[in-house]
Amino acid sequence: MLRIGVIGGSVCREDAAETAYQVGKKIAEMGAVLISGGLTGIMEYSAKGAKEAGGLTVGILPGGNEKTANKFIDIPIVTDMGHARNIIVVRSSDIIIAIEGSLGTLSEIALGLKIGKPIIGINTYDVDEKIYRAEDADAAFEIVNTIIAQGKNK
Amino acid sequence: MLRIGVIGGSVCREDAAETAYQVGKKIAEMGAVLISGGLTGIMEYSAKGAKEAGGLTVGILPGGNEKTANKFIDIPIVTDMGHARNIIVVRSSDIIIAIEGSLGTLSEIALGLKIGKPIIGINTYDVDEKIYRAEDADAAFEIVNTIIAQGKNK
Amino acid sequence: MLRIGVIGGSVCREDAAETAYQVGKKIAEMGAVLISGGLTGIMEYSAKGAKEAGGLTVGILPGGNEKTANKFIDIPIVTDMGHARNIIVVRSSDIIIAIEGSLGTLSEIALGLKIGKPIIGINTYDVDEKIYRAEDADAAFEIVNTIIAQGKNK
Amino acid sequence: MLRIGVIGGSVCREDAAETAYQVGKKIAEMGAVLISGGLTGIMEYSAKGAKEAGGLTVGILPGGNEKTANKFIDIPIVTDMGHARNIIVVRSSDIIIAIEGSLGTLSEIALGLKIGKPIIGINTYDVDEKIYRAEDADAAFEIVNTIIAQGKNK
Repeated sequence: MLRIGVIGGSVCREDAAETAYQVGKKIAEMGAVLISGGLTGIMEYSAKGAKEAGGLTVGILPGGNEKTANKFIDIPIVTDMGHARNIIVVRSSDIIIAIEGSLGTLSEIALGLKIGKPIIGINTYDVDEKIYRAEDADAAFEIVNTIIAQGKNK
Repeated sequence: MLRIGVIGGSVCREDAAETAYQVGKKIAEMGAVLISGGLTGIMEYSAKGAKEAGGLTVGILPGGNEKTANKFIDIPIVTDMGHARNIIVVRSSDIIIAIEGSLGTLSEIALGLKIGKPIIGINTYDVDEKIYRAEDADAAFEIVNTIIAQGKNK
Repeated sequence: MLRIGVIGGSVCREDAAETAYQVGKKIAEMGAVLISGGLTGIMEYSAKGAKEAGGLTVGILPGGNEKTANKFIDIPIVTDMGHARNIIVVRSSDIIIAIEGSLGTLSEIALGLKIGKPIIGINTYDVDEKIYRAEDADAAFEIVNTIIAQGKNK
Repeated sequence: MLRIGVIGGSVCREDAAETAYQVGKKIAEMGAVLISGGLTGIMEYSAKGAKEAGGLTVGILPGGNEKTANKFIDIPIVTDMGHARNIIVVRSSDIIIAIEGSLGTLSEIALGLKIGKPIIGINTYDVDEKIYRAEDADAAFEIVNTIIAQGKNK
């Protein structure tokens, strides 16, 4: 099963929430598993989209209690490791889609690039030429399809 | 979705392998998700049982490469955190079934008991009276059902 | 610099506290660094002993705030990784002395044995024949000296 | 004891190496402990500077073997947690000095800013206005002194 990670802020603007919802929906529609940090904001909207399209969602939680997962998470992974869980989100995803976000997201983008993961950024930090840039969910999934066609998700 | 963790050695005797297979099968049959460390031995036999019964398997890997997961793992969680991933296996499971195992398994049992997880032991360490003892997979799932009926998996 | 880890409960009986104090003192007197989990109980009494003998103390903390370290810790290592920090305590010590303790300590003993660390137990779990047994701090340091003479701390 | 973290690449240019050496020296001269990732490049040159000025050095290692520490590390902290150890470096430092570096360093800068650590950057990423900018080691320590005078290292 292809695993697509979605990263972004736990608080987000309305348009980013809609983008996250569309991204989650498309992840489910292509039969992939959604991996995220399992909390609010971008993590919740993307999981909502995935569940409404019949998908499967994994939330890798920073705290020690599964009840902190948003209600659209099927499988909470309870790390109790704070921000160190970000690294597990990145490592466990074949492809990562970053939506807006601030410093925590930047930290994940930098780490993902460092370990060679394909990262698609929608309105997020532009710190490295290796980030694939997309304007919206549709554009992001054209890139996802190209990445898969080229085998860069392996 | 109920999550049942299976812990035990990466090398195991034939009878323990059969027990692990049966445990995995029963996890799938009751509609629960199997959580394990994702490698060989007890982890692999239980995942095989779960898959053959149509279940869903999560493997929380110690290394940094998903390819170390056994072939019955649907969702590899790639931690690159060595033995620290044992804690994530324990925390992410509602109920834990320990099958034989040696020091690594003992470490997980001790930690699981410390954080209050119900632990069912089949031919494993007997270090604390809080461990539920079972002779085989059938007996273990009678205990699983009792734990659920009493709400001790919450 | 030789690093000696001291593990045991965050709550302890008076005689165990005295033993921990003596162990810490002896660690400092031999010029070794004391490694511990940095909190209360055995961790605090051993650090107190080390500081009163002019030693150096490292506390590997489970939380995200250095202020949780006991006042005898020179160098707090702030992990924010909960029980996963136990593994770092074990890995960072050349020799480990376990004093009483309960399930958390058992978890550390099991893991230490698994990765091949010499473990000296004073009134603690007796789960494996590889644990060196000592009655008190004096006896423990006779064993420490033997371990060093045999090069088993490398 | 004040703890100053030094972050930067495991491979570095000659001028950055000299800067790292000077930074390490100044950390020791002010009586602070040097915290780093314990490996090569910026980590090694800064530790060398600290040791030559009589300081104390802690290396928080990504691997499971203390022998990976550079030879100027007094106290190796052995995490076996890969990049997750970066977070421990950041959390365990009162003030962080970033020297050049690439994506790994960027990841640490972003995380440090997120959790509110004062970060001084010398020829490194300029991703956020909260980073204090310095041209060289001397300028960096003027900022260190200001940060301490203002109590922003607490």
